[in-house]
Amino acid sequence: MSAVMHHTSEASAELQRLRDSIDNLDAVLVHTLAERFKYTQKVGELKAQHSLPPADPIREATQIKRLRSLAETAKLDPDFAEKFLAFIVKEVIRHHEAISTAGGLKN
Amino acid sequence: MSAVMHHTSEASAELQRLRDSIDNLDAVLVHTLAERFKYTQKVGELKAQHSLPPADPIREATQIKRLRSLAETAKLDPDFAEKFLAFIVKEVIRHHEAISTAGGLKN
Repeated sequence: MSAVMHHTSEASAELQRLRDSIDNLDAVLVHTLAERFKYTQKVGELKAQHSLPPADPIREATQIKRLRSLAETAKLDPDFAEKFLAFIVKEVIRHHEAISTAGGLKN
Repeated sequence: MSAVMHHTSEASAELQRLRDSIDNLDAVLVHTLAERFKYTQKVGELKAQHSLPPADPIREATQIKRLRSLAETAKLDPDFAEKFLAFIVKEVIRHHEAISTAGGLKN
């Protein structure tokens, strides 16, 4: 029983260590995303000012290709990386629509 | 006409600068996610070894609260941060199910 308790308590300490690292990485992710949205916000404003189309299929295809390649190098599932980009881009489009509406600018 | 051309070319250079920064931040995101999945993979293995339940509602509630607070500090939409965590966790669960199936271990 004591050996089991010890075993469980070790597992519990190890779980805590792993979760602390996950929490640190989540802080990196949140701050990096915040920074990324600052840039996409600027892109949205620039496009609105110069009446550039909000979507750019060539840029998007390049981004997907690059992200899949980076994912492979980092041993991350490339399909997940692509889904992740789509998830972020969906939010960016929501922001750009808000800029467009707020500024009364044409898409 | 020449002024317009100049204007457009400046906008185009600025757009490229912004996109270069976005690409750099995407590389940070991909590598951080790859590192995060290494830790959640270890969590999954530890939980399977010790027959711990895969889901932990208290941990999840703490994570959501923490991430929303970090997002506010970083001026990121807290609702987006929460959606982002849910998106990542969905992928983690997919990995854990794969561990569970591969090891023939009970959930």
